Amino acid sequence: MPQDRQTNRRIVLASRPHGAPTAADFREEAQHLPTPGQGQLLLRTVWLSLDPYMRGRMSDAPSYVPPLAINETICGGTVSIVEQSHHADFKSGDWVLSYSGWQDFALSDGSGLVKLSGPVLQHPSWALGMLGMPGFTAYMGLLDIGNPQPGETVVVAAATGAVGSLVGQIAKIKGCHVVGIAGGAAKCRYAEDVLGFDRCLDHRDPNFAQQLSRHCSEGIDVYFESVGGAVFNAVLPLMNTRGRIPVCGLIADYNRTAPSAGPDQLPLLQSAILRKRLRVQGFIITQDYGHRFDEFFRQMSQWVAQGRLQFREDIVDGLDNAPEAFIGMLEGKNFGKVVIRVAGDKPAP
Amino acid sequence: MPQDRQTNRRIVLASRPHGAPTAADFREEAQHLPTPGQGQLLLRTVWLSLDPYMRGRMSDAPSYVPPLAINETICGGTVSIVEQSHHADFKSGDWVLSYSGWQDFALSDGSGLVKLSGPVLQHPSWALGMLGMPGFTAYMGLLDIGNPQPGETVVVAAATGAVGSLVGQIAKIKGCHVVGIAGGAAKCRYAEDVLGFDRCLDHRDPNFAQQLSRHCSEGIDVYFESVGGAVFNAVLPLMNTRGRIPVCGLIADYNRTAPSAGPDQLPLLQSAILRKRLRVQGFIITQDYGHRFDEFFRQMSQWVAQGRLQFREDIVDGLDNAPEAFIGMLEGKNFGKVVIRVAGDKPAP
Repeated sequence: MPQDRQTNRRIVLASRPHGAPTAADFREEAQHLPTPGQGQLLLRTVWLSLDPYMRGRMSDAPSYVPPLAINETICGGTVSIVEQSHHADFKSGDWVLSYSGWQDFALSDGSGLVKLSGPVLQHPSWALGMLGMPGFTAYMGLLDIGNPQPGETVVVAAATGAVGSLVGQIAKIKGCHVVGIAGGAAKCRYAEDVLGFDRCLDHRDPNFAQQLSRHCSEGIDVYFESVGGAVFNAVLPLMNTRGRIPVCGLIADYNRTAPSAGPDQLPLLQSAILRKRLRVQGFIITQDYGHRFDEFFRQMSQWVAQGRLQFREDIVDGLDNAPEAFIGMLEGKNFGKVVIRVAGDKPAP
Repeated sequence: MPQDRQTNRRIVLASRPHGAPTAADFREEAQHLPTPGQGQLLLRTVWLSLDPYMRGRMSDAPSYVPPLAINETICGGTVSIVEQSHHADFKSGDWVLSYSGWQDFALSDGSGLVKLSGPVLQHPSWALGMLGMPGFTAYMGLLDIGNPQPGETVVVAAATGAVGSLVGQIAKIKGCHVVGIAGGAAKCRYAEDVLGFDRCLDHRDPNFAQQLSRHCSEGIDVYFESVGGAVFNAVLPLMNTRGRIPVCGLIADYNRTAPSAGPDQLPLLQSAILRKRLRVQGFIITQDYGHRFDEFFRQMSQWVAQGRLQFREDIVDGLDNAPEAFIGMLEGKNFGKVVIRVAGDKPAP
C-alpha cells in the first residue's frame, strides 16, 4: 500500500517479542493525517532505517533508554521531507534527518532535526548509514576505543553490515591487516573483493575457529564486537596482549530468552582480560560521542568524496515490509545496511 | 631454622599444585653458600614478599610469563642486604629491592636491583608493600584506569589486603565514597575504623549482595577487581553507566581446577558492558606502568610522610613458614600484607 496524503500509516508494537520477533508482534494502523500547529512541521518519511538496537527497545528489560510501550509506534531514524512548515527554520521541501519512526508522517517542533545539505543530498539514505549513526559508530568505536596502529590485526564481525563494513574499510585506511567475519560465501567474497578486506571468514564453516587462527597468525589487536555468542568465543583466545575490544552490539544475544547452558565461561573472559591486559569497553554512540559528530562527519565525507569507502544498502520497498525485513535482519538475512524506501522523493498524489 | 652464613636454604617447587597448593608442593633444600665472582654481589634476604600472582607461576597454563620449572626456587620480591660486593655500584651493607625468591642468599650482577634510600629505610619491608609493587598496583589501577571523581562510589575487594587497603585509602583522598569488601567482621571493622572506609562488608554474610546494594545506593562507579568469583557477580548489577573496572587479579579463580557449572554468565557480562558502557581493563603493573614508577613513588611517599596512609603487615617469621603462609593467603587467612621475616637486619652469626 503506497503513501497517500490523507492517511498516516504507522506500525506499532502489538506485543513484546519472546525471543525472535514474529509478524504478530507488529500491527499496522491508519490514522488521519495530523495537522501541524503553530511552530510545528509536518514531515513525510522517505527512508526509514532498520537497526538491531530496536530489538532492545521492544523488550522491557532494564536498559539505557525506556522500552517502547505497547501500541506505540516503533522507533527509528528516518530521512524525511518537510511537507508543511509553520516553523521559521524550515521550509517545505527541506530534507531532514529525523527520528520519526515506522510511519508515513510525523509532526515535529523542529527539535532534534538535522537539515541535510551538501553532498549527502545526492544520496539521502546515506544519512542513515555511512554518514549517519552506523558510520559514526564504526568511526568512533574503531578509532577512539580500538586505536588501531599500522600493521596491527583488526577483526570485525558482521563484516558486510552497516557498521562492520565501515570498520574494516577505515582500518584498511589506517594500514591494518583486516579480517572480517560474515555469514555465507557471498558476503565473504564481497568483503574481500569490494570492501578490500585482507580476508573474510564464514562463521558458519565448521572449521571457522581454526581458519580464524590461521588468518590471524600474529594474533588479534582489535576486535570490533557487535555480535557476541560463538564468534566471540573463537576470537578471545587469539587476542594479543593489550588488545582492545570496543563493544557496540551483541546481536547474537538480542533474541535470547533463557540463560545459556554451562559451563560458565565468565571466568575465562575475566582471566583473559587479566592475563592479556585487555581493554573491553562498551559504548552507545549518541550518548558517548555526540559532541564529536562534526569531526566524524567531516572526515567521513572526505573519504566518501575521495571514493575510498564502499557502502552497500539492502533496500526494501514499502513500509508494509518493514517487520519482515527487521525479523530477517536479526537472523543475518540482509546483505548491507537495511533501509526501507517508504516513499519516493516526489510528493505523494 | 635460622639463617646461617655457610648455607643457603631455598624453597623450590616440588610439584605443580592441582587446585589449592599443599605443603607437599614445596620442598626446602640446603646448598653451600655461592661465592660472588667478578662484577657480582652476594645478597642476603631479610624480607620476602608473598603475593597471589605466585600461584599463577606454579601452574604451566599459558600466561604472560613462563611458569616456574619443577625444582626451581619459588620466585618473589625481597628486601635484601648486600653481603659481599664485587660490583662498583654497590657496597657491603647496602639495602636493595631484589627479586631473589624464596631463599636466604642470592647472587646478582646488579641488574634489576633498586637501591633503597631515604624514608623507606625506616621501614624496609614497605618496599614490598605500600611503596612497592602492591602500592604501585593500587595507585595506577585506581587512578589511571579507574579515574575516580569526587563523590563517586568506589568499591574494592580484598579491602584489608596489600593492594585493596591502599586503593580504598587513595580513593578517600580523592573524595570518593568507599565501600570495601572483606572476609570476616574483624577485617571489616579494621577497614572502617583504621583505614577510614565509609563501609566495609563481609562477603561471607548470606545477605552480602543486598547489603552491597544498600550501601551503594547511588550505584558503583569504580570497582577495583582483584578477586573475581561471587563478589564480582554481586557487583556487576550495581555498576553505573560508564563505570570502570580495573582488573589486577582474580584470586578466587587461581585454584580453580575445572570449569564452573552453568549457567554461562558470559553473556551477562557482555550485555552489562554494552548496556552500561563499562570499561573493563586488565593490567600488569610492571609491564604496563613501569615508566611511571617515579611519579607513584613521589606521591605515595608524600602521603606516607603526611600520615595519610595506614598499612598493615601480616608478618610471618622464618623462611620455613613461607609455604604455610602462602597457602593461607590464598584462602584469605592473612590480615594485611604478608611478608616473611627471613632474618633480622643484623648480619647472621
